[in-house]
Amino acid sequence: MNHSKKLISISHGSGGGMMEDLIEQVIVNSFPLKASKGGRGTDKLEDAGIVDIGDIKLAFTTDGCTVDPPFYPGGDIGQLAVGATINDLAMMGAKPLAMTLAYVIEEGTPIKFVERISKSVGKISKETGVPIITGDTKVMEKGKMDKVTINTAGIGLVQELVSDYGAKPGDFILVSGTMGDHGLALIAKRFGFETKLKSDTYPLWGMVSNLLKIGGIHAMKDPTRGGFAANINELARKSEVCFYVYENKIPLKKEARALSRVLGVDPLQTASEGKIIMAAAPDKAQELLTAMRKHPYGREAAIIGIVKKSPKKHVVLETLAGGKRRLESPIGEIYPRIC
Amino acid sequence: MNHSKKLISISHGSGGGMMEDLIEQVIVNSFPLKASKGGRGTDKLEDAGIVDIGDIKLAFTTDGCTVDPPFYPGGDIGQLAVGATINDLAMMGAKPLAMTLAYVIEEGTPIKFVERISKSVGKISKETGVPIITGDTKVMEKGKMDKVTINTAGIGLVQELVSDYGAKPGDFILVSGTMGDHGLALIAKRFGFETKLKSDTYPLWGMVSNLLKIGGIHAMKDPTRGGFAANINELARKSEVCFYVYENKIPLKKEARALSRVLGVDPLQTASEGKIIMAAAPDKAQELLTAMRKHPYGREAAIIGIVKKSPKKHVVLETLAGGKRRLESPIGEIYPRIC
Repeated sequence: MNHSKKLISISHGSGGGMMEDLIEQVIVNSFPLKASKGGRGTDKLEDAGIVDIGDIKLAFTTDGCTVDPPFYPGGDIGQLAVGATINDLAMMGAKPLAMTLAYVIEEGTPIKFVERISKSVGKISKETGVPIITGDTKVMEKGKMDKVTINTAGIGLVQELVSDYGAKPGDFILVSGTMGDHGLALIAKRFGFETKLKSDTYPLWGMVSNLLKIGGIHAMKDPTRGGFAANINELARKSEVCFYVYENKIPLKKEARALSRVLGVDPLQTASEGKIIMAAAPDKAQELLTAMRKHPYGREAAIIGIVKKSPKKHVVLETLAGGKRRLESPIGEIYPRIC
Repeated sequence: MNHSKKLISISHGSGGGMMEDLIEQVIVNSFPLKASKGGRGTDKLEDAGIVDIGDIKLAFTTDGCTVDPPFYPGGDIGQLAVGATINDLAMMGAKPLAMTLAYVIEEGTPIKFVERISKSVGKISKETGVPIITGDTKVMEKGKMDKVTINTAGIGLVQELVSDYGAKPGDFILVSGTMGDHGLALIAKRFGFETKLKSDTYPLWGMVSNLLKIGGIHAMKDPTRGGFAANINELARKSEVCFYVYENKIPLKKEARALSRVLGVDPLQTASEGKIIMAAAPDKAQELLTAMRKHPYGREAAIIGIVKKSPKKHVVLETLAGGKRRLESPIGEIYPRIC
């Protein structure tokens, strides 16, 4: 990429192709050391890196959160930040052990605002049993920041290592619930639309822990930035297979469909913050589905398609009428910042 | 603290008493889980948290960097961010194993700028042998951020656990070099003063690793935000002892003295980013000093005082003329953002 005169645009942070280019070619390409010995690192571009320490495999991840608005139906920036970190660890098959929390706060922000976010972080920490063991706080001059950004990092003990590139032809494709709820709820709030839709900001380790015991999970990813479309494409591309999906099987909330039409956004391109896309062995898929549905965060789980062998590492949607179209990964994004 | 109507000010991020109040009473107080079982966490307010995994003690730390200007004599924001994380681990006696790097970038920032910072991160990563194994990149709308903030997190394997509260009466007080260079060099750059002074942004694990083999280290801390004054006071307060320091023994560069006078700032209140304040057993102090001086980052190390038993957990400076004065921790800070 010739980027000598190029500027960062919002699309570079939206989870699509431009972001991939920036991360791979500009950032990661600048690191001579991308992984520790025997581990997995930035060369793999996964949800977390893996470090081997003796017999232990440790997952290590980080997330920056700059969501606007910071409080929204179903969640807030604090919950989002710690949830994202717990979920990144869970997607690697790792039990979260401890988290960090670093604030950058704009001068003039009410202290009550920082306290409210911190209490929200504390609540998820308690629910999941993952302590906040260290942190950092910086303040920026007024006008040089938008209220607050939060960074969380987390470490987890790998129970059974899962990747986002292990899908095999014949695997069933599962999702743990409805797609796009977080992004749509946030956009609605930002533009003042009335809706019953709430963000799905859930910490997923509890459910994933049950699923790992069943086995047969070949690849998984949580469809955050860029939504279902970006993340299932990444699974297909990295696994070097075709994901064949029945469009009418993809769970979408009634309110999400309605909102999408009003707002003119694609619900498959907006983020979920507490869902899983999974490729699983066909003989385990039904049992995994049942376990997802038993969990409060997986009631609307569904099997939505099948992984196929193909030189084209992409995603095909079969529509209700039986037509086929390619589901593209979004290139940029016009939506407001949602994670 | 009654903070119902209070606003965050720059002083809340400057390393002094106001920051301590914000962190302890508002942020950490909101976390029901502050440490993992057997570990050390936010209740201790140290440079890193400690997690026990089987027989292994893991240190875990995070740092947000928002320095202005981002490039300065002797370093830049990338080097500063990874250096800070390596040093936080080193201060706990932990060998750094892996780091994360998370960017929040302002829309409109040149991609070259991000690349330059990433290459600088890569350089320190290579020098220290610590890989960057995972990351995150977010973009904020123009005007909602000042170019870029970086967050780094790091994990390290504890070789010999050191705290910032283990100083004992009779200990010798050492510093590994001149104080305040980073902060003064940055302020000079920001205000356009000509000076030969350079930032001391150094990764310290190499030197600390040598020192741990000698033993006798009872407490250490790197004097970053709030400088020597804030950090030696924290050592004294947390160790519940008095730090008695001979003012003329504190190493200061000639240029630092000159700049301090011109700028009207106290060099003992400005940050160093590659130095150590240490309390050590008297029978090991000379050997530790020699080892510091042998290392390229410790050539100007000195023994500067002695730890005394006292109900007053503070710092006393004995001046050249033999007078005594208390060295206070700064309350806020008027300086530009320097770390």
